[in-house]
Amino acid sequence: MGEFRQNFATKEWVIIAPERAKRPRHVSGQQPASAPVPSYRTECPFCPGNEPETGREVLRYGDTFSWNVRVVQNKFSALDPIRSTQRQQQGLFLKSDNFGDGEVVIESPIHNATIPTLARESMVNVLRAYRERAIEISSTPNISIVMIFRNHGPGAGTSLEHPHSQIIASPIIPPHVRDPFQKAALHYDSFGTCVYCDVLQEELRQKERIIYENEHFVVFCPFASRTPYEIRIYPRRHMANFTWTDNAELAAFADALQTVTRSMNDVLGDPSYNYIIRSSPTGDEDVRYLHWYFVLIPKITTPAGFEIGSGVYINPSSPEVCAAQLREAAGT
Amino acid sequence: MGEFRQNFATKEWVIIAPERAKRPRHVSGQQPASAPVPSYRTECPFCPGNEPETGREVLRYGDTFSWNVRVVQNKFSALDPIRSTQRQQQGLFLKSDNFGDGEVVIESPIHNATIPTLARESMVNVLRAYRERAIEISSTPNISIVMIFRNHGPGAGTSLEHPHSQIIASPIIPPHVRDPFQKAALHYDSFGTCVYCDVLQEELRQKERIIYENEHFVVFCPFASRTPYEIRIYPRRHMANFTWTDNAELAAFADALQTVTRSMNDVLGDPSYNYIIRSSPTGDEDVRYLHWYFVLIPKITTPAGFEIGSGVYINPSSPEVCAAQLREAAGT
Repeated sequence: MGEFRQNFATKEWVIIAPERAKRPRHVSGQQPASAPVPSYRTECPFCPGNEPETGREVLRYGDTFSWNVRVVQNKFSALDPIRSTQRQQQGLFLKSDNFGDGEVVIESPIHNATIPTLARESMVNVLRAYRERAIEISSTPNISIVMIFRNHGPGAGTSLEHPHSQIIASPIIPPHVRDPFQKAALHYDSFGTCVYCDVLQEELRQKERIIYENEHFVVFCPFASRTPYEIRIYPRRHMANFTWTDNAELAAFADALQTVTRSMNDVLGDPSYNYIIRSSPTGDEDVRYLHWYFVLIPKITTPAGFEIGSGVYINPSSPEVCAAQLREAAGT
Repeated sequence: MGEFRQNFATKEWVIIAPERAKRPRHVSGQQPASAPVPSYRTECPFCPGNEPETGREVLRYGDTFSWNVRVVQNKFSALDPIRSTQRQQQGLFLKSDNFGDGEVVIESPIHNATIPTLARESMVNVLRAYRERAIEISSTPNISIVMIFRNHGPGAGTSLEHPHSQIIASPIIPPHVRDPFQKAALHYDSFGTCVYCDVLQEELRQKERIIYENEHFVVFCPFASRTPYEIRIYPRRHMANFTWTDNAELAAFADALQTVTRSMNDVLGDPSYNYIIRSSPTGDEDVRYLHWYFVLIPKITTPAGFEIGSGVYINPSSPEVCAAQLREAAGT
């Protein structure tokens, strides 16, 4: 028998319903087998030798033709760097010139590299590039949020196979982002604590959903997981913004990320997934009520009418069972 | 050049970015061609002759073995009719026994019937069944919301091919539903009007996104469409709850729904889609600040990390162009 569970920070509910997996045709955790991806593709704009095909390079670790990580402007960004944030009325309705920055972090010269198979040093370099670009973009006037995310695999909405993440900066803070901040501020006003610090302590106390821990980070399946094998990585130290992460923490974050994605691949094959680094708005880097964290959502269920209408996700698995499987695969 | 647009009711933003369609590999509006669906399948639990295989029948129009519409309890519902709404603490976290009702509306005995190909009378019967069940379920103690939705096609998360909709009733109102209600109440407090009535009047005034109109309903692509060909059907009369819809309105709603889904199929083939009837909570059927409406979302784009992280949807098409295509196909 399932149950409703509430996300303590956002107050959103999920339905945990492992018996749903008994439906006549249910979703599978395994992706269909596909052809192996080669380590190099002549026609790939992100492969070495095709550097002129990308947008303008804004960061590079390594030499021009022997690089480790490149960050380039997204040629097909949904956002354009027009420097106006003024809202306009169209009759009753509100609109704004498209504005912001879109960048692509090319994580490796190797076409078929993945997060778990990157050398540790390369993984640290990718995270260092995230931080360096986030610091730079945050200093741009009028930017309100900087979002770092990664879409992996055909089910996750990616348009290019080469390993890459994206950074998008926007002058607008949408309600989907603002509303949980307001709930976190209310929590702070009531209890004097960061709600995310509280969640982390409670997950550590309940223990059964913890996958991996190191000195600086804790990896777990959250109590109110919206999907099977949803993964969160929280820094132990209270920091509202990702840019505060120091070098020792960055290395520990790389370990946590590679460990849990290796476990995930052991358990699920190589699923499509989205990951996102959620961080405070620019200007709110020091607030006491927000806490940056990492969330990874494997794409093994399809949100349907119920989820779209209610925002309540039906999770056909138990977060405790998913965490136990990932923990076992991690050997921790 | 694209732009940000705000949903006037929910204050959510979208990015309208038609130039995104120029990306190297972009999504297509066409589904891959699949084998034609037969009008009958022996093994389908919803086909005539297999009535004992479904959950308990709660409504039937027609005879036992010669029916037009059947409503049955969902054997694989995510919700169970345990009559307790009490929340429980698990440490700091909140949970609740799974509770609610899940019903399936079997829309036709014909296995390959679709919304646009149903006889008009059958379509009206389906909507009548929605209304009859919604009234009955709303009278159940502790039920807070009744949601009617339909998942069509493999991309929309459906597990059965036979034409059916679902009705889910829950004792919990999630923030995703409550937050827009609060915004609508604030609008009422400021302006003394229903924000959805205002949106409808503004769409009619701007006119370029209107697809179809009849005496009781208006069909349009909303100003801040989150996806290509997003379709809304608003009743002209202010009604917070779907159950207030009278018989003349139900017939006009059937016409609107069949007209626009026929247009959609002309333009897009037979896309997967989700549709949802958004209606007030039980107990709030009379409120002046809510307005029931219908929303249909064709599944032709994949939400990725950016959408999941920000709640801002990147729509690679112009709502004005989509509406013009659907209007032309409707011959209106």
